[in-house]
Formats: sequence, C-alpha cells, structure tokens
Amino acid sequence: MHAAPGAGKVFSLPQPFLDARSCRFRMVAMPAPERDSASAPNPVCVEVTRGARVESRHRAAVAVVDTDGRVVLRAGAVEAPVYPRSAIKPLQALPLVESGAAEALDVGDAELAVACGSHAGAREHVETVEGWLHRLGLGGGDLVCNAAAPPLERLRDNCSGKHAGFLALARHLGAPTAGYAAFEHPVQQRVLGVLEQMTGLGDLTAHARATDGCGVPTIAFPLGNLALAMARLGDPDDQPDRRIAACARIRRAMAAHPAMVAGRGRAVTRVLDRLGEGAIVKGGAEGVMAGCCPDLGLGFAVKVDDGAARAANAIALALLDRLQRLTDADREALTDLLEPPVTTRAGERVGTIRCTAPWDG
Amino acid sequence: MHAAPGAGKVFSLPQPFLDARSCRFRMVAMPAPERDSASAPNPVCVEVTRGARVESRHRAAVAVVDTDGRVVLRAGAVEAPVYPRSAIKPLQALPLVESGAAEALDVGDAELAVACGSHAGAREHVETVEGWLHRLGLGGGDLVCNAAAPPLERLRDNCSGKHAGFLALARHLGAPTAGYAAFEHPVQQRVLGVLEQMTGLGDLTAHARATDGCGVPTIAFPLGNLALAMARLGDPDDQPDRRIAACARIRRAMAAHPAMVAGRGRAVTRVLDRLGEGAIVKGGAEGVMAGCCPDLGLGFAVKVDDGAARAANAIALALLDRLQRLTDADREALTDLLEPPVTTRAGERVGTIRCTAPWDG
Repeated sequence: MHAAPGAGKVFSLPQPFLDARSCRFRMVAMPAPERDSASAPNPVCVEVTRGARVESRHRAAVAVVDTDGRVVLRAGAVEAPVYPRSAIKPLQALPLVESGAAEALDVGDAELAVACGSHAGAREHVETVEGWLHRLGLGGGDLVCNAAAPPLERLRDNCSGKHAGFLALARHLGAPTAGYAAFEHPVQQRVLGVLEQMTGLGDLTAHARATDGCGVPTIAFPLGNLALAMARLGDPDDQPDRRIAACARIRRAMAAHPAMVAGRGRAVTRVLDRLGEGAIVKGGAEGVMAGCCPDLGLGFAVKVDDGAARAANAIALALLDRLQRLTDADREALTDLLEPPVTTRAGERVGTIRCTAPWDG
Repeated sequence: MHAAPGAGKVFSLPQPFLDARSCRFRMVAMPAPERDSASAPNPVCVEVTRGARVESRHRAAVAVVDTDGRVVLRAGAVEAPVYPRSAIKPLQALPLVESGAAEALDVGDAELAVACGSHAGAREHVETVEGWLHRLGLGGGDLVCNAAAPPLERLRDNCSGKHAGFLALARHLGAPTAGYAAFEHPVQQRVLGVLEQMTGLGDLTAHARATDGCGVPTIAFPLGNLALAMARLGDPDDQPDRRIAACARIRRAMAAHPAMVAGRGRAVTRVLDRLGEGAIVKGGAEGVMAGCCPDLGLGFAVKVDDGAARAANAIALALLDRLQRLTDADREALTDLLEPPVTTRAGERVGTIRCTAPWDG
C-alpha cells in the first residue's frame, strides 16, 4: 500500500549513469534539503521510559524508498549523507557473486550469509569462515579485520566473513590478497562500482570516505540512497541479468542462514528467521539499519543520530510492522523487539523502549 | 572565575524549607523554562567524527551551579527533570555517615567509597563488600541488587556497595534489613530527606518516581538541582555540623579510593585518581554525570538526551577543563578522556569524540 504510485515524492532523475558494464542504471539524487538541517534536527523516533517518564530519547532519520527512488515514508533528513557501515555488507558481497567468484570457488550459502553478516564470533561463525579461508589456502592471519590480534581473534571479529569474501574475490580476480582493504585495490574498486550503481549516485570518489572499524573504506552518501540501494537489492528487475541473479542468491543465502548474519538471539537473526525473504535486514555500527521488502519493491534505511543500536533496532521493527510485514504470530514472537522492556537487573520491567517516529509519507 | 558574583542567574528563593532536624536548608527552584522545550531541543554537546565527517552526535543538558543555586554555566534545559540514577550515590551515602552508623559499625574509607561507587565487580570490590557484610552478620544473599542471581553475582553487581551501606544503615537504625529497597523503608526515607534538603527542592514525594536498575527508588528532579546538591556536597558550609562532617568524609573517602568508585582504567576512577578532592565525580546510567569542585564552591550535572555514557564522560572532562581543574600534566594524562579516539579494531585512529557544548554563562 505504501508503494502506491503517487504516494511519495518523485526525485529528479538527471542524466543516466553510463557504466562500462551496463547503461541500465539510473542516477537518483535525493531531493535537496527542504529546510535548514542545522535549525531543524531530526525528530525523536525512539523514547526510553522509566516509570511514568521518558528518561532518554533518540533522534533519527528514516527513509523508505521504492526502486525508482520515490520516498514513500520518511522521518527526518533523508538527504543527509551517512556512513552506511556494516549495513551494506549484502551490497559489498555482490561483486563476489556477480564476478563468478562464488560459483568458481564453491562458496556455499552459509559462507555467503556470513560474508553479508556482522556475526557474534560464535563457534559456528569461526568454523564457517576458517573452513572457507582454508579452501582458499588462506587463514585467519590473512584477515585485515582486527589486524593487531592473533589469527583466531581475527576470525572471531564480526567482519571476518565479509573479509573472507574479499579475499575470495581477490583470488578469483587474480589480484594480490595482501592489501585487499585498500581503496585502490581491485576488490574495493569493484565494491565502489556496485555502490555507485545501486545507490543511483554515480561517481562516489568525491564523497567523504573514512575507515570502517574493520579497516576497509566506508563512503558517506545520503540515507535515502542507501534505502534505494536496498530496494534494488530486493527488486533488481531493471538491472543486468548477472546482478539480478546475484541479488537473488544473496537474499536467499541470508534468509536461509539467519544465524550467520548476526547471531542466535540477536535482533537481525530473529527477524530473518521469522520473515525469511519477506524482509532482508542488516545493521551497521553507529545506529544504522538497512533492508528491503522485495515483494513490496521497497528498501529502507535508518540512521540514529547518536549511534544507538537499541534505537535502530526499535525503529526497524516498528517500520516492518508499519509496512505490514508482521503477522500476529510474528508480532507475538518478536514482542520483546517491538516493545523492548527496560528492566532492573533482577528482571523486573520498569520501562519500555518505544518507537515514536512521526512518519511522513 | 566562573563563580564570580553576578556571573550567572540567581534563582528565586521561596519560603525556607523547614526540616525537623534543621531549618538551615534553603529551597532553591530552578527558573521556569525560558522556552518551549518541545520546540527547542537540547544542543549538540558531543560530536563523534569519522574521517572528515561527524558520524554521530549527542544532545545534552549541562548545569554548573554554585552553593546558592546560581547557574554559572549551562547548556540546554537545566530545569528539566531527570532521573539522577547512580550519580547520586555519594548523596545516598550521607545518611550512613551522618546517622552515626558508619562510625558505630567501623565503616572504613574503602567501604564508604564503594558505597558511593558503581564498581566494576572486580575482586577488590567483591572482597570489600563481602567483608563489610560479613561484619554485619550478612552476606551477598541479603542484597536486593540483581536479586534473581546467586549471592556472588549480587556482590559483583555494580551497586553492591551502595546496598551494603543501606543494610548497615538499617542495622544501625534497628530497622529490618529485609525490604530495605522499598520507598517506605526507613533507609529510603532517610535518603529521601537528604535529597529533599540537598537539592533545595523540599518535598519530593510528588515527584515522578521509578525503579533504578538495582531495585531502589530513583526520583526525578531538575538537572540544575542535581548540580546544586553536588555543590552542597562539595561545600556544605551553611548546613548542620553533622552533614558538614559527613560530606567531608565522603569526599575524602572517594578521593582516597578512586578504584572503589568505578574500576581501574575507568574514567571516573582516573579523574578521581588525578584530581583527588579537587573534583569529585560520579556517573549514572543513561548518560548522567554529576560532581563538584569543592574549593570553587561549584557543583555540576550532565544528562545526555540519548543516555550515552561516552558523551557524558566527554562532557564531564571538557567541563573540568573549562573550570580550570586540569593542569597540563592532568591534560596529558587524561588526553584519551578529553579527546577520546575513535579507532578501528586494529587500533588505527580514524576519528574523535569531542565536546562541542555551546556553554552559556
């Protein structure tokens, strides 16, 4: 219902982005800010209560966008750039699949899911990544994530699956595995190209770029374009066949192995476990969440101003409910994520974390 | 310099608060809000950068108040009520000392410091609390904090020292030790009386009251009055002799045993370790910090809107610097607290947490 034509704002569509491999990608710019973002902060989207009072509050921007870049639901400044952090791991895994590396190197769905995941460092995660690296003739010591630590700690790092994917891609491309985290390395350049296309932004080289917690580049772009990239991950119909197939395989892998994407009991894993391909979700550090509802043709992105994961999770769950993704059974199974309790350490419920986003759309 | 007469706003001073034990306490109300707090959110006081961009931001209210209730420095809505949480542990320990319980029960400075602390649950904390309870003929099982857990876990709970103090006070008062966390229990009523006097607010029974993480009541009152209570803890000259002595003993105990107040390496412990009685500081959950500079006659209080401890710490350190509490040597020793680095997990510095509070005063 929310994706109904005319329900949202249509972005201006400037010159098509001509890519060497495809001219079917369109550039989609978020509309210029409608207000002075310095004077109009993002709205309070999450309240944390204790007793009868709100004790803490989280401001955020939220964008729900269709595959044409229409904003169908929004809160706050969706045109403001954000570092997408780990929320784009499913996009960062696209080159691994569409290059043919995944097929050539027998990358299984669990491996692909852990490449898209920010995992808990549990035994299942370590064994999956280690086994994959072993097949490549590599080990934990080749990982750049947590590079000051011994190999086992690197394997336990939440990004080790993504890094294994980067190493696999480097192998397949015939590029050196050393230095794979550098922006100039062919692996990161492939990722860059995918992001330029999927976000609809074209050339991202002039965008602010920083180093993610695991040592790879993270590039800032508008939150709405992150949502657009996710919409296209979910519904890539206007894209080249290889990408369509790669997106489908990544969605399938994440839905088939929810525990690989985060960890047993964690919010993202529980949502994937309940909703399967109905809602692909992925979190990132500093309060980022992104995902898509493929059958609705919608993508979404959340950035909590202050970086709190508790707020990003609450917004994502409220958003899935608002998008009518949750059955009564889902709502019951996920009730502690929809209305997370604030408890004493003895377990007494004394407050609630509740989404209060003033949806606009 | 900041406490110079006329430098800040003078609160109206309504009817003196007549207390059964003393009529020397004055009521001090924070001034009415000067603006619509719904439309004017608290200012951004902390920015978290990554590369060249601000990735996350924290809004907060900050009050620096003298012992007469003059606001000498402020940011945001200092008149808005907050739950003070664990930041008032030094105030909650006052009845233990001024009742004579601490003297009668041979409570040492380390024990008093851990009663004022939110400790790390390290061996030194557990042993200190356990030894104290043992002298009272009690054990970990008598603690209400983390009451669903076994006795050792309760001893490890960050509030176990405060609870040991409550049990000691109950013993001294001849009150039952069971039920000491209830608002109606004589122990909590003594604490209530101290808060009513130290905050200058008088009757707090109509204020919003909720349950703290350790199961005891937490009462909401304006941030500025929390700062005032801290100013009076640091400089209680207009108060009864017993309280003057109790405040002095608590300050001395906290300064003498910094590791008991938090834990080795933690911000509060490191500040107490460097500054001694020059700056008594104490943190609370959900982004609260409070403290005093006794020789300046100033108290301060911080509440981060979103509850982030990283922001509360950064503001407290910047505030101490602004109040000229830090020598060059202090600034160097505490540089990672004054400008906390944002690092990759491999240890590379990629950003900074910086206080940007627009001080008004």
